Amino acid sequence: MFQKRVDQVIARMKADGLKQILVSEPCSIYYLTGVDVGPGERLFALYLNDEGRKVLFLNTLFTVEQKDCEEIWYSDTDDSTSLLASVINLSETLGVDKDWTARFLIPLMEKCEGLKVVLGSKYVDDTRAIKDEKEIECMIENSQINDVVMERTRDFISEGMTEKQVEAFILEQYKLLGCQNVSFSPICSFGANGADPHHMPDDSVLKAGDSIVIDIGGRKDCYCSDMTRTYFCKEASDEYKKIHDIVRVANEKAEEIIRPGVRLCDIDLTARNYISSFGYGEYFTHRLGHFIGQTDHEFGDVSSTNTETVKPGMIFSIEPGIYLPEKMGVRVEDLVLVTEDGCVVLNKVDKKYAMIG
Amino acid sequence: MFQKRVDQVIARMKADGLKQILVSEPCSIYYLTGVDVGPGERLFALYLNDEGRKVLFLNTLFTVEQKDCEEIWYSDTDDSTSLLASVINLSETLGVDKDWTARFLIPLMEKCEGLKVVLGSKYVDDTRAIKDEKEIECMIENSQINDVVMERTRDFISEGMTEKQVEAFILEQYKLLGCQNVSFSPICSFGANGADPHHMPDDSVLKAGDSIVIDIGGRKDCYCSDMTRTYFCKEASDEYKKIHDIVRVANEKAEEIIRPGVRLCDIDLTARNYISSFGYGEYFTHRLGHFIGQTDHEFGDVSSTNTETVKPGMIFSIEPGIYLPEKMGVRVEDLVLVTEDGCVVLNKVDKKYAMIG
Repeated sequence: MFQKRVDQVIARMKADGLKQILVSEPCSIYYLTGVDVGPGERLFALYLNDEGRKVLFLNTLFTVEQKDCEEIWYSDTDDSTSLLASVINLSETLGVDKDWTARFLIPLMEKCEGLKVVLGSKYVDDTRAIKDEKEIECMIENSQINDVVMERTRDFISEGMTEKQVEAFILEQYKLLGCQNVSFSPICSFGANGADPHHMPDDSVLKAGDSIVIDIGGRKDCYCSDMTRTYFCKEASDEYKKIHDIVRVANEKAEEIIRPGVRLCDIDLTARNYISSFGYGEYFTHRLGHFIGQTDHEFGDVSSTNTETVKPGMIFSIEPGIYLPEKMGVRVEDLVLVTEDGCVVLNKVDKKYAMIG
Repeated sequence: MFQKRVDQVIARMKADGLKQILVSEPCSIYYLTGVDVGPGERLFALYLNDEGRKVLFLNTLFTVEQKDCEEIWYSDTDDSTSLLASVINLSETLGVDKDWTARFLIPLMEKCEGLKVVLGSKYVDDTRAIKDEKEIECMIENSQINDVVMERTRDFISEGMTEKQVEAFILEQYKLLGCQNVSFSPICSFGANGADPHHMPDDSVLKAGDSIVIDIGGRKDCYCSDMTRTYFCKEASDEYKKIHDIVRVANEKAEEIIRPGVRLCDIDLTARNYISSFGYGEYFTHRLGHFIGQTDHEFGDVSSTNTETVKPGMIFSIEPGIYLPEKMGVRVEDLVLVTEDGCVVLNKVDKKYAMIG
């Protein structure tokens, strides 16, 4: 499995004429080798070249179980960038990860005078964007768990609770259901707080008529889930119900057109146009979705500027929203898996508004 | 306060002959401007030059309350590195932060051909290492809270509990005491788990005779606390008690010699020699301490290789330990604040072993 992924990365490098890359994002190294390390400030990198050479740079403090690469071990007192320099072909351009830090990049360039360095994450990112069988299995299971957490949360919430109380309940559910962590800090926003798409739970108290935005995900076996549903506490004005219907239908219309070959920007446009047709365009303030996998936000998005086309195996979110400043917010989000001729929506929780609490 | 900090950074740059730096670590920008932003993948940077020019690069999505700088705003569709390039003096060396990522650094260097770029974090890091009055006040208060959490945890633990149960209790206490977050994921290790200094809480059950390593800290008002105490469940062998005494006295001997002018490596040596004199040197497997402030691990450490000298206003940890593989671990850690003629230990919880649970 790992070698197959490496081969795909090398094929993408060759297509671009790039002969060597240095992969440093721990998720990417895990994806390509199965080696799971949290390196902190220490160097952790995988060198790959177009002839198939794989060299892993490891600190003697790391605990590594599984590997199928050349290994170069260094200790805290070694000059680790000199070891890097000894492996790189200085006469060829080197691609490095977008998140690689200056603490390594600048010393490396000082040691390798004349070495041409370019951004080289896309070969791994584009490979990671197409999930393989094992990843798909894992992400389907995680979304099933997320459905359970959402339904339990919906049933748990009642008038008079604070956002933080609901947050604590959500965190507990993921633990009970076997998640190692959350994909991101849970969002549970009451009333006007929901107008800020990234509002963090505070001591706000739920009252009748409030919108309730719940945006949650769990992390299990290194993969993430992510879903949003919006409910109302006990009652809702006709305007609020209408807004919820618009957002839900925008979500459904976007999901309906997803199939291989469609441009990601056109999916965004479908939802955006629908919302705009009711006059709420200016209140849909963010992109329609993002790719997801080992992290909640992986490379790739569903936005007005992304002209890339959809391919089988991609998994991304579809999450239109309408946010009325100082009043309320509605967002409806699913994860979708692209298939050969359409897509599967990974979240099954009813999207229609409901009065709860 | 912010201008005073900026002036100190510029004085350090001038002493080194560096004319311009780009600060990108959010904690450093907060420290120098009061602007608190979590930029995610977006550009967030403060340009400083030796003439006192301060330019803040901000995305229109950021919410910024307080500032006293020139501002350059960009949107997601702007080419933000071109804006950076327009401010930098291309004929002078530019210092950049060690954690700045290739996604910005490489495009910037491509746009500014011939620009010499060096690592330039130390001017801010060295300034941040010396805490000012407001920071000291905040860190003293946070350590007082940490003392309370430690004592509550000590009193809460009982035989038959799991590490995860204790972890949940600890997290709850920080919330109750007004912390916004923890400084790091709490460590609560029973018995053989304590032999791994970074063991994460799991379902291990506490039994009589176990060592109990509790390493915890809370984050409040952007500053961190950090302390470790080790207890025993109900009973301990003579060997375990002796090991605890050795570690505690090593901690106390190190703290006794701390005063301005002492080298950080000599503080490490004092604790290490004491532990080694009992034959346990090989079981003290890490450095003696780390600097702390807005993050749990800030630049600077108390290690065998750090020959820098201690200065008034520094705050760092003193945390010797002995780890017996597959058996147990003991660590005793305080934060200390360096004064004009010695140091103040910020943690007041009794260090001596106690039988609990």
